[in-house]
Amino acid sequence: MRYRATVAYDGTAYRGFQRQTHAPTVQAALEQALALISRQPVRVMGSGRTDAGVHATGQVIAFDVSWGHATSDLRNALNANLPEDIAILEVREASADFHPRYDALSRCYEYRLYVAPVRDPLLRERAWRLSKPLNIEDIHQAAVCLVGTRDFSTFGSPPHGENAVRTVHQALWRVDPGNSYTFTIIANAFLYRMVRTVTATLVMVGQGDMTVGAFQGILAARQRALAAPPAPPHGLTLTTVCFADGT
Amino acid sequence: MRYRATVAYDGTAYRGFQRQTHAPTVQAALEQALALISRQPVRVMGSGRTDAGVHATGQVIAFDVSWGHATSDLRNALNANLPEDIAILEVREASADFHPRYDALSRCYEYRLYVAPVRDPLLRERAWRLSKPLNIEDIHQAAVCLVGTRDFSTFGSPPHGENAVRTVHQALWRVDPGNSYTFTIIANAFLYRMVRTVTATLVMVGQGDMTVGAFQGILAARQRALAAPPAPPHGLTLTTVCFADGT
Repeated sequence: MRYRATVAYDGTAYRGFQRQTHAPTVQAALEQALALISRQPVRVMGSGRTDAGVHATGQVIAFDVSWGHATSDLRNALNANLPEDIAILEVREASADFHPRYDALSRCYEYRLYVAPVRDPLLRERAWRLSKPLNIEDIHQAAVCLVGTRDFSTFGSPPHGENAVRTVHQALWRVDPGNSYTFTIIANAFLYRMVRTVTATLVMVGQGDMTVGAFQGILAARQRALAAPPAPPHGLTLTTVCFADGT
Repeated sequence: MRYRATVAYDGTAYRGFQRQTHAPTVQAALEQALALISRQPVRVMGSGRTDAGVHATGQVIAFDVSWGHATSDLRNALNANLPEDIAILEVREASADFHPRYDALSRCYEYRLYVAPVRDPLLRERAWRLSKPLNIEDIHQAAVCLVGTRDFSTFGSPPHGENAVRTVHQALWRVDPGNSYTFTIIANAFLYRMVRTVTATLVMVGQGDMTVGAFQGILAARQRALAAPPAPPHGLTLTTVCFADGT
């Protein structure tokens, strides 16, 4: 039976989602918990390969396992065997051909930032600290230029053999209390490091180091070297993956 | 010269604020950083002895050190020598007899909770997870009974030789998004484990395991055994300490 599950994790201790030979990964931790409760090797598929240090509140995975009990019991058994920084929020039965990566229609990421003269120890693994203030009006103007279907080569690399055309549905900056900001971006799919590179380049705009016009120019230029280096991973969270059945 | 500083820390890795012989503490980390930059042993005084795992965004400390430069340089030098989970937010000059504990007029603590069927990995060191919902109206009714000057023996022990009379100025529960709650309590001073014991007992009221009338009864009874065991430390943060000069 194929199951689909929603997973939350604190990415701080992991070298990203995808399994690697000699490093702790979220995928390996999930596969280990599944192997423990099913007494057989289980392969986990994920919706997105989050980088080292990136978090998730709504990563979607799928796996095949024999389980004779309720899906809520499977969720509880997995949580009892997972480390404290990973949790299964929900498990449901899926069709035998369900694939969390190929069937996903869109992904939503959030990037958290704050402006402060001194680092906040309680946010050190959750948000990017900026010391220079942001002009949020300029950021709004640049962010809306991202919406639409276009070649995003300026902001990231596609997997081998794919093109760099993606459709961004939303790119929204919210002002939070305490000089904090949350950047929410939704697209059908993202290029490698695209969210972090877009975030850091929009911060350049907000700090007056790039005009809105120049941002539009580099977006059109399709040259990776024109964008900022990627923002640090710890501010980023994969929050939602959407599928054709409306979930 | 005596200096006064505001300190933020993630208490997860520490055995509390106060120095101990064989355990990492916030006080020891601060004294080590001060010794490094001043090349002499320095003793730090704090406003409150937060327990192991308890956080702070506004702990106030004082120390004597010779420093020939601006207070902002002292702040930056300290932050450069402190671990990532402790930061000095501000340093200012203080009078030679300033004492952050004896001169403090009030302390404010916040306790964060959320109700969810599964633990949230991103809140595991920041908030207490409850699986049973809270009736916030009952909690409000019980919490207001705490306000005033009374003997709080039911909820904690005083330091050796002191009485248990304290003045609670505010005890307020805020409903946050995502089935989350923040309990804010302000008093002139607190007994040992008082905030965590009050929090856990109010949760009993909110979950229907104690009536508001029974809560008033145990508050009047001055018997520690009648209250709930203390709530876990990781939900608690010392947010503000107030002094006679209005700061």
